[in-house]
Amino acid sequence: MLIRVSTLVLACSLVLSGCQNSPDVKTASVDPLPSWNDGPAKKAIVDFVGQVTAKGPNFVPVEDRIATFDNDGTLWVEQPIYTEVIFTEARVQQMAADHPDWKKKQPFAAVLNHDAKALAVSGEKGTAELLAVTHTGMSDEQFDGIVTSWMATAKHPRFQRPFTECIYQPMVELLRYLQANGFTNYIVSGGEQEFMRPWTDKTYGIPRERVIGTQMKTAFVNNGGGAALMRLPQLDSMNDGPGKPVNIGRFIGRRPIAAFGNSDGDEQMLEYTTAGSGLRFGALVHHTDAVREYAYDRESKVGTLDKALDEAGEKHWTVIDMRSDWKSIFSGQ
Amino acid sequence: MLIRVSTLVLACSLVLSGCQNSPDVKTASVDPLPSWNDGPAKKAIVDFVGQVTAKGPNFVPVEDRIATFDNDGTLWVEQPIYTEVIFTEARVQQMAADHPDWKKKQPFAAVLNHDAKALAVSGEKGTAELLAVTHTGMSDEQFDGIVTSWMATAKHPRFQRPFTECIYQPMVELLRYLQANGFTNYIVSGGEQEFMRPWTDKTYGIPRERVIGTQMKTAFVNNGGGAALMRLPQLDSMNDGPGKPVNIGRFIGRRPIAAFGNSDGDEQMLEYTTAGSGLRFGALVHHTDAVREYAYDRESKVGTLDKALDEAGEKHWTVIDMRSDWKSIFSGQ
Repeated sequence: MLIRVSTLVLACSLVLSGCQNSPDVKTASVDPLPSWNDGPAKKAIVDFVGQVTAKGPNFVPVEDRIATFDNDGTLWVEQPIYTEVIFTEARVQQMAADHPDWKKKQPFAAVLNHDAKALAVSGEKGTAELLAVTHTGMSDEQFDGIVTSWMATAKHPRFQRPFTECIYQPMVELLRYLQANGFTNYIVSGGEQEFMRPWTDKTYGIPRERVIGTQMKTAFVNNGGGAALMRLPQLDSMNDGPGKPVNIGRFIGRRPIAAFGNSDGDEQMLEYTTAGSGLRFGALVHHTDAVREYAYDRESKVGTLDKALDEAGEKHWTVIDMRSDWKSIFSGQ
Repeated sequence: MLIRVSTLVLACSLVLSGCQNSPDVKTASVDPLPSWNDGPAKKAIVDFVGQVTAKGPNFVPVEDRIATFDNDGTLWVEQPIYTEVIFTEARVQQMAADHPDWKKKQPFAAVLNHDAKALAVSGEKGTAELLAVTHTGMSDEQFDGIVTSWMATAKHPRFQRPFTECIYQPMVELLRYLQANGFTNYIVSGGEQEFMRPWTDKTYGIPRERVIGTQMKTAFVNNGGGAALMRLPQLDSMNDGPGKPVNIGRFIGRRPIAAFGNSDGDEQMLEYTTAGSGLRFGALVHHTDAVREYAYDRESKVGTLDKALDEAGEKHWTVIDMRSDWKSIFSGQ
């Protein structure tokens, strides 16, 4: 749902985790996860990485050290609403000048008037229409440019910084730590794939070919304008819930040994990952910090964490408690 | 179509290209493509690689040095019939003991009796049924084992060597040469994706996550047997013709700068690749060598090369003449 934030909450002052890199930054004595408190989550991560990389019964060859990460709520902020929804709304506003009929036509009027009720009435059909109009009808390369331009100036309503700076510093350190230990990291997100690819490499160090998301159909066209891939207004693959392991199989063809999520949409990805033979790691980011970020789980409309949280104990998944496990949330604060 | 080879043609004696590695194998003076004759194709490849890797107007950053390769007829032999068809036939024969009704039921009876006519009558519906029965109904990991077992003992009817040794030595050298120059190689084949993934890394040095093929639908299941991906008897994506650039966009998200194919099924992949800005390379393996391999193009039922061959001149695609450009065809001969 497109929900407007009516008030801007002052960005809380976060203590910078510090840790200016000293010259011996490359030695083993330097903490690779400085933004993590020394608690059970950090210990579980470091123990796991130590076991799969050391010679012994749990050793895993480099090519099978696959780690998958959800994006919204796992690597970056997903409240008060998914960034892609804010992008969609901005696109509607931007395109409205060329579509005077939208003032009275749903679901566009609802977006233009910030009318959440009317938008809710338009339902899934309305959402599909908004997605089609704002995300498709151009080549993938043109869409890449549209996303890049928007990302360069748009800001998070509460934190008043670019969305690509609303990423969790502890998770960025985790990505680097895994990579330094021979892991290959993938994003496996419900977000539309081409909405993420333009900025994931700069932001997370995850290149476009390792971004798996919800996919729109495309068509190869080769007319006067040259050979290109046109984005069509039809859903191809919904990369959420059971769609996540399905797309992991399709794209990667290997069962991950570690998976990180934060909502029920990640449940099946964690099940698939941790059901594999040998040592496996599943973790959920639990948003428990209303002061520094947000606190939400079972009742939240965005990023609901309910069934997966119940399952975590039985499946030995690590629950990362944002408030107690993370020394800092964002970088540069 | 399932066609039996009734006679075995004696493997022709190929001259081993020689070139025993000397201690200075890593120096630039060693020919990286020893199985290629010094002709226009080799020169075009070396010129292209030199230009995109050297500082200058045609330099391409490493992350964009993407090369895509068709498999059947481009990296390995596709005559007298695609290897996957031979596998399908073997699976039917292997499974027949548990299906006594197949003796009288089409399209299975046609396969068991080597009845090409009856098989042709069963048409696309018959092919789909054969594919469903032989390729699906198990987990992706189980299918991996089935393919691996078959590949270990099956032999090419003419060359009497494992199919994974019926690969073109000049193309293997090309893969290594590109990789050594910072390229990332992908297979983009009409073959079923999971039929290729079990052996491409050992055979070509192309790991499973860089194999894009025709895809069957899968479903995530998590029952008593544990969380797994089950292969369903439904086509998900046909990776041939325009499906190749579509899947390149979906999986890689970058337009390749080099593409190699051998049939009209590769036409759109080459169009998409060579229409990009900057220096691009498109090439077709032209099968012109009936003595050492096979000679076929426009009239062939397998690997038809007609429209793409006409287009090659206008689009400045390199046509690799197997007979004159390749010093040897297979390794170890």
